[in-house]
Amino acid sequence: MINTTRRNLLRGGALITAGLATGRAMANGPDPLITEPQDWAIYTGDGVDATPYGMPIEYEGGVIRRNVPWLTADTISSINFTPIHALDGTITPQGCAFERHHSGAIALRKEDYRLMVNGLVETPSVFSYFDLERFPRETHVYFCECAANTGMEWAGAQLNGAQFTHGMIHNMEYVGVPLRTLLFEVGADISLKNWVYVEGADASSNGRSIPMEKALQDCLIAFKANGEGLRMEHGYPVRLVVPGWEGNMWVKWLRRIEVIDRAVESREETSKYTDVLEDGTARKWTWVMDAKSVITSPSPQSPISHGTGSLVISGLAWSGHGKITRVDVSTDGGKNWTIARLDKQGDRKALTRFYLDMEWDGGEMLLQSRAIDETNYVQPTKSQLRQLRGENSIYHNNCIQTWYVNEQGQAENVEVS
Amino acid sequence: MINTTRRNLLRGGALITAGLATGRAMANGPDPLITEPQDWAIYTGDGVDATPYGMPIEYEGGVIRRNVPWLTADTISSINFTPIHALDGTITPQGCAFERHHSGAIALRKEDYRLMVNGLVETPSVFSYFDLERFPRETHVYFCECAANTGMEWAGAQLNGAQFTHGMIHNMEYVGVPLRTLLFEVGADISLKNWVYVEGADASSNGRSIPMEKALQDCLIAFKANGEGLRMEHGYPVRLVVPGWEGNMWVKWLRRIEVIDRAVESREETSKYTDVLEDGTARKWTWVMDAKSVITSPSPQSPISHGTGSLVISGLAWSGHGKITRVDVSTDGGKNWTIARLDKQGDRKALTRFYLDMEWDGGEMLLQSRAIDETNYVQPTKSQLRQLRGENSIYHNNCIQTWYVNEQGQAENVEVS
Repeated sequence: MINTTRRNLLRGGALITAGLATGRAMANGPDPLITEPQDWAIYTGDGVDATPYGMPIEYEGGVIRRNVPWLTADTISSINFTPIHALDGTITPQGCAFERHHSGAIALRKEDYRLMVNGLVETPSVFSYFDLERFPRETHVYFCECAANTGMEWAGAQLNGAQFTHGMIHNMEYVGVPLRTLLFEVGADISLKNWVYVEGADASSNGRSIPMEKALQDCLIAFKANGEGLRMEHGYPVRLVVPGWEGNMWVKWLRRIEVIDRAVESREETSKYTDVLEDGTARKWTWVMDAKSVITSPSPQSPISHGTGSLVISGLAWSGHGKITRVDVSTDGGKNWTIARLDKQGDRKALTRFYLDMEWDGGEMLLQSRAIDETNYVQPTKSQLRQLRGENSIYHNNCIQTWYVNEQGQAENVEVS
Repeated sequence: MINTTRRNLLRGGALITAGLATGRAMANGPDPLITEPQDWAIYTGDGVDATPYGMPIEYEGGVIRRNVPWLTADTISSINFTPIHALDGTITPQGCAFERHHSGAIALRKEDYRLMVNGLVETPSVFSYFDLERFPRETHVYFCECAANTGMEWAGAQLNGAQFTHGMIHNMEYVGVPLRTLLFEVGADISLKNWVYVEGADASSNGRSIPMEKALQDCLIAFKANGEGLRMEHGYPVRLVVPGWEGNMWVKWLRRIEVIDRAVESREETSKYTDVLEDGTARKWTWVMDAKSVITSPSPQSPISHGTGSLVISGLAWSGHGKITRVDVSTDGGKNWTIARLDKQGDRKALTRFYLDMEWDGGEMLLQSRAIDETNYVQPTKSQLRQLRGENSIYHNNCIQTWYVNEQGQAENVEVS
């Protein structure tokens, strides 16, 4: 099934020279036999004064974050989804990276920023932004996934696009100061029975409790993403990065870190961000995002536009437990599986891009992907997940996603039993 | 010299709690003893409808590409420099990534895009953009450096800022089709005596000859950078990526690839992009960008804004020959060297970030960095380079850069003999 030589793209006559252009090229392209030079080859273009900060070209105007109005009561406590169906590779540009707010995105100047570290510490301290810049920094790529990503799918195939079913995720290169460095700086009691309680400067404050072990392991007090300052909507000037754990704990506009001898049991870790099971009891402290994957193209927003023959299936896989070691792809709803090509394996707890280079015969497909991580955990089906967790859950849905692809190459979100 | 415990930041009394805020925080910050909640903790912020595509916050408005008007006759054949003094980590966001044009940046729609592959091939072919999307893709992070980067410094310390002396470089994650894949597809004669001649769709066409060995090795026909489509000014929708080699060969708006039995000796590889030596003869085929580094902070545009004590020195290193294996930093103009911390070693032919975490006594410094790559090549001093190449050169200046830092923490571009 995997294509070994690409020559059949030519033999298949898909090329313009063979008079059989791909669907879109044929539909929208100019005459392939160009006799006159085009304007852009005769006239000069924009000078460098046109773009002090380079924006996407107008033709890419559709590659933007989108929200689903009926999902939330208002837009200040809502979600803007990453357009993962239109992106490739592993890095998410900040401008496209999903945003989720509980009381809106606030504008906070570096000069006004303060971080208090108090509680079980020798020297309670307040750090300015410029103090933070004086500690040793680290650079790491990590994915950030909202615990509610794919949450609507518990009840069925509800949202028709990878952007909406799986777009509460982004993957950026962060620069920041390890949380452990600040805890050592203030002489915190780092015994492992202790916790740190973190909260943001926005009205929601969004407080969360983090076990000391995780706080000392790999949490980062981040002030750069993909080289630049954070975007306002991602917590400028400082957000907490909690690698592999649910996005709600990545507190934005980080205001305070309290070292405490027990969990706070805040709203965000009791009535929210817990999983109500079939018997009404709630799973809590479900911090780690389990192994998960999704095919980003073809998908409902990214149909096959070129007819039969060579087809690139592209997708993303990730695990809060570390590295992705294998991704399988099925075109028949999970009956048969083919091992996908892991193109660029990200760092641990970062997105991995996978591809399957295949020949499409033009028949219907039920596309699925299944991720396996370094702990040998295998991404479950939706029915396996429902058996364990019932259907009252909202958060932590990492089930296998199915796209139905019809003979015209259009894709649709479906469930297979 | 390297700081082992950070406790002295507290003991040094640099913290607000100790009543001695850092320079900028003291100058611009509010009273550290806040009794009233701030507006941003009371009122809700922007909703998700505010930012379909997230732009940098207004406070970062100074972090932009800049040109030097007197460098070029007009802006359509000019340079916009990357603000490397204000960035950190290794990834360059597209909006900040330098642009260099020979006849301006052109707007070319995917639907209008065509790539011809002709010459010594079995099947001369024209590919549409959508044809290219059907070939197996790869994802790689590479730096792109203009051969003229640091070129003004041959004649002395002329431009006062890392953005202007070293800002003709960027580092992005590319997704594309290997050039070798298209050469195989059309049945090219790939004997190593042959070359490929590549040209762009813009008015300059900017044609360059590439030896077959490099064309088969790692060149990429790229259509995504950092996840998104390329920016218009970087060759949207398709540019050639020539890892480790001078940026002029990374042809934008790639229009044609001709397989040919000799180099074309085009304008861009004879009268330009060659190095005129002391005796008037010219070095040519100087494609590989040798090992190089620069301290990005402190630097003239990024002075030390806090007093004495803990100071983070941050910089970038890269080599067209592969990996950076070591970076040394000197604070006394090259008399003594300390091995810097390589924070996140990039892929081969990608930027590496280095740091030196030191204690600054408030004395004057002559800051230098020296890169060493996997071939054990050591970045030379400017005088070593002048002895070899004279002072007629413009291109390929990879000499050690010196910043003079005064007792107030301000930095200046200087030469040391």
